[in-house]
Amino acid sequence: MTSQTNSPPQASYQSALEHGRAIVARINPSLEKALAEKYDGLFPDFAETLVEFAYGRLYARDGLDLKTRQIATVAALTALGGQTGPQLRVNLEHALAAGAKRRELLEVILQMSVYGGMPAAINAMNIAMQLFEEQDAETA
Amino acid sequence: MTSQTNSPPQASYQSALEHGRAIVARINPSLEKALAEKYDGLFPDFAETLVEFAYGRLYARDGLDLKTRQIATVAALTALGGQTGPQLRVNLEHALAAGAKRRELLEVILQMSVYGGMPAAINAMNIAMQLFEEQDAETA
Amino acid sequence: MTSQTNSPPQASYQSALEHGRAIVARINPSLEKALAEKYDGLFPDFAETLVEFAYGRLYARDGLDLKTRQIATVAALTALGGQTGPQLRVNLEHALAAGAKRRELLEVILQMSVYGGMPAAINAMNIAMQLFEEQDAETA
Amino acid sequence: MTSQTNSPPQASYQSALEHGRAIVARINPSLEKALAEKYDGLFPDFAETLVEFAYGRLYARDGLDLKTRQIATVAALTALGGQTGPQLRVNLEHALAAGAKRRELLEVILQMSVYGGMPAAINAMNIAMQLFEEQDAETA
Amino acid sequence: MTSQTNSPPQASYQSALEHGRAIVARINPSLEKALAEKYDGLFPDFAETLVEFAYGRLYARDGLDLKTRQIATVAALTALGGQTGPQLRVNLEHALAAGAKRRELLEVILQMSVYGGMPAAINAMNIAMQLFEEQDAETA
Amino acid sequence: MTSQTNSPPQASYQSALEHGRAIVARINPSLEKALAEKYDGLFPDFAETLVEFAYGRLYARDGLDLKTRQIATVAALTALGGQTGPQLRVNLEHALAAGAKRRELLEVILQMSVYGGMPAAINAMNIAMQLFEEQDAETA
Repeated sequence: MTSQTNSPPQASYQSALEHGRAIVARINPSLEKALAEKYDGLFPDFAETLVEFAYGRLYARDGLDLKTRQIATVAALTALGGQTGPQLRVNLEHALAAGAKRRELLEVILQMSVYGGMPAAINAMNIAMQLFEEQDAETA
Repeated sequence: MTSQTNSPPQASYQSALEHGRAIVARINPSLEKALAEKYDGLFPDFAETLVEFAYGRLYARDGLDLKTRQIATVAALTALGGQTGPQLRVNLEHALAAGAKRRELLEVILQMSVYGGMPAAINAMNIAMQLFEEQDAETA
Repeated sequence: MTSQTNSPPQASYQSALEHGRAIVARINPSLEKALAEKYDGLFPDFAETLVEFAYGRLYARDGLDLKTRQIATVAALTALGGQTGPQLRVNLEHALAAGAKRRELLEVILQMSVYGGMPAAINAMNIAMQLFEEQDAETA
Repeated sequence: MTSQTNSPPQASYQSALEHGRAIVARINPSLEKALAEKYDGLFPDFAETLVEFAYGRLYARDGLDLKTRQIATVAALTALGGQTGPQLRVNLEHALAAGAKRRELLEVILQMSVYGGMPAAINAMNIAMQLFEEQDAETA
Repeated sequence: MTSQTNSPPQASYQSALEHGRAIVARINPSLEKALAEKYDGLFPDFAETLVEFAYGRLYARDGLDLKTRQIATVAALTALGGQTGPQLRVNLEHALAAGAKRRELLEVILQMSVYGGMPAAINAMNIAMQLFEEQDAETA
Repeated sequence: MTSQTNSPPQASYQSALEHGRAIVARINPSLEKALAEKYDGLFPDFAETLVEFAYGRLYARDGLDLKTRQIATVAALTALGGQTGPQLRVNLEHALAAGAKRRELLEVILQMSVYGGMPAAINAMNIAMQLFEEQDAETA
């Protein structure tokens, strides 16, 4: 097994959904339950759909390690411009859980000023700063 | 020196521009000259501005290795939706030069379907496929 | 008259503005007055411009029924990514007034995750959920 | 069965993928095979992922009829601004196959000038016009 | 009359459409006819709608001179990211007709790299360069 | 010196950073210090990078006067759609400091409804109205 593999050794998943759940268990174990509680009343099966598609079909793939995948997601959500602040915040947490360092996440956010423009980067800088402050306050 | 450092050991650059040129020398040595020839007639100093800002001020920073920075750029350009195809193509080449594998780049592009939508990902998939085909044809 | 016609039988409007006002009367009778009170001090004629252009020149056209037009607007505002939350909220109300069911609106929002990405869809899901909760609280 | 149901009577699908394939069979029977031939070499399982997620998990849902879903997709792709021209073209064909009339599609495209701006609408108008001309030339 | 006024002295227009036509006569006299010939078959009244709304309701307003309005439009189309290239090209021509100098337009395009990102600016730089080359070739 | 020149007569700057600081001194003297205090802990050199790139490399250029540059920035931030509200607010202040009248800024915002869509324009209208109200309350 190399660092490019997002499945534990000898894992064999019966479905994309099952594989997605294994990934989510590593970075945010309560995610599916939290999504289901919030959304499944009005949007039946949404939590399952998200886990199956995003994590079971994409993050679960071989060829790119989970940490780099999460850094890439932070990059994309930053470049998209601040309109997806809540999702950026969650994915910063996922990236830390996947092994990224705060410094790496701050750097990738700042770099996005070249591609999404400076306002997009600044919006994401603010979100990261607030998250890290809150994390530090909780553990203080 | 760790993999997080984008400067060679004991390098000391007098300016961001000089530092940017050192980065560009690693991933695309002819970039500044090509930009200057194309743009500096109508946009004086543009090539220098781009190298100073993007590479000297951002890619040159410590805290994230160059390969991961280039993967993040591919992620952002994909999520932005296909309108920046030429820049995606150039940055795929830069990412390969920075040590990324094709497989890693294809994976990060596909993953962006979660964040920028499937059409954005498909546009980027097409650009990567065409680039790799052309590269293979050249070396065949 | 088929369901594709957005004008009452034998209506003949002297101007696009007049036609737009007839449409607005069906889905949000106080809209122009509310816009004028809020904006016309600093943006003279804005309310009239919006009614004339959006409703008189576009929604008023034959060829697509008003309910489907409003569902299409909800789709577009969702895909654009959450930055237009207030307008999405208003247009969800207009869509209900034009005969759309809540279920239809929730479905079209969720579907947009394919085109605008999952963060865009989730932002819109949140807005719709909040609106419907408030509506239910008011009528409770 | 009402028009809101996207499943044939008494259908019971074992999986989202199977359900997605049933939808695709109605609007573009060769889609999965064409995607697989084009993309699965470099992006293994992409065709299956798209059919499972977009069609099996979203278009397949009850609560909104397939024709309105396709009109909503045309609206979104138009509002996103012309960067997703190829996907707009394919989805115009899907919308026609799902029962939408050309006039309805032209109307929804034009309406998007309110939400995505006039340039976005004009780009989509051009794509629809070209598609319809080509269709007419083929059947002439 | 100051430079902030977009109406000739003592002009009194009966309608926004008439006022829009007077503006268009100054920057692109054949615009409405060209739009009508291209689009009015499939999109009845589109040319008239565009002239009434964009020029009669917005560009026609007092408070900002026409040249600055056109420079602002070039800025916006650049920042939106290259997906509206054809519209950028037309509006560069309109800006020149409204009195802007090439140098001013090149500068505003380059400046947009701060707000829309460098790829967006570079796409617009390419479009402006091509337009000016073609103009020079025609007059050579 | 014409109005197109953004440098005082006989100015000679040793670096882009120095030139950027001279521009910032005219429109927002405390900007770099405020940015440094807020961001330089987590994002070392960010304040300097922004002043060097945005103001020293772009706003500082000849060929377009500072007031028109700031109006163009307001146009771009409006068209980008409301996701960059805080940056729009700051740049409205910069535009006023560069000599733009409120009326001009309101007009350019409204005009953007053609290019970025009406929701984008309305979001920016709201931000400008709130800023001007707060300014008036402070000076009352």
